[in-house]
Amino acid sequence: MDDLFVQTLRDIYYAEQKIMRTLPAIIENSTNPRLRSAFEHHLAETQQQVQRLEKVFEMHGSQPKAVDCAAIDGIIKEAKEIMRDVKLEDMEVLDAAMIAAAQAVEHYEITRYGSLIAWARQLGLDDCAKILGETLQEEKAADKKLTEVAESEVNVQAMAD
Amino acid sequence: MDDLFVQTLRDIYYAEQKIMRTLPAIIENSTNPRLRSAFEHHLAETQQQVQRLEKVFEMHGSQPKAVDCAAIDGIIKEAKEIMRDVKLEDMEVLDAAMIAAAQAVEHYEITRYGSLIAWARQLGLDDCAKILGETLQEEKAADKKLTEVAESEVNVQAMAD
Repeated sequence: MDDLFVQTLRDIYYAEQKIMRTLPAIIENSTNPRLRSAFEHHLAETQQQVQRLEKVFEMHGSQPKAVDCAAIDGIIKEAKEIMRDVKLEDMEVLDAAMIAAAQAVEHYEITRYGSLIAWARQLGLDDCAKILGETLQEEKAADKKLTEVAESEVNVQAMAD
Repeated sequence: MDDLFVQTLRDIYYAEQKIMRTLPAIIENSTNPRLRSAFEHHLAETQQQVQRLEKVFEMHGSQPKAVDCAAIDGIIKEAKEIMRDVKLEDMEVLDAAMIAAAQAVEHYEITRYGSLIAWARQLGLDDCAKILGETLQEEKAADKKLTEVAESEVNVQAMAD
């Protein structure tokens, strides 16, 4: 069980770093100001989440190490394909698509942090569970924020075009 | 926006079919009876979800067509790697890992169906939104069921080994 915990920690460590490198392109492709601001806020959060993971590795007594995560690679590959396919003039549709892509990323993180927290508790690593729980709450809030932006503005605009 | 709706419909159509083909191997690798039963129930649901998607394609006036979905390919690739890596004697750890993998799949579906339903409503395709909503409820229930099984049995057993 400890191996599974560390392996999944490495998986999400890779995923967070990949998200940190991808978010600037997503921000650049977002035209809606509220959406842009939500992504910028999440980029700052992601940087802190990477540091939290390094803290958890340290508390566990393991070296921070990333392993390739095929799931996040696939999710981000899809997002890039959509950025390429949606015509440049359809900026609001692109915003709607970027929200969907970002929510796929958030849900991936929510499920992985959920498993990590359950395993940490069962391994008696309550301090690790607490730190991972802070990130989980941020991911859930980010997902909710994106739904709000989608419902209030972006999709309505995309329909008006 | 209509293009984005159809493209995402094709993406999840591919994903559901891939899940339908992968679940038997996951069932075979599950030792806990409650977990096995949850996966068997979900396989039956998935078959119906594929038919629902075909119905939605028909209502929309599009041909049911699947497009490669890199995200689900990645999630399933990770699940297979875990099945390979976890030692055969660690059956309860394997169960815990299979639950985490299945929950990653469920969350991917939850986020995609959530976007599809929002877009269908905005496109005035209320009948499509209603059918997609039935699947979304099943996916959420399946995710919740897996959390319950994980918390009540599997992880506790994995710790006892």
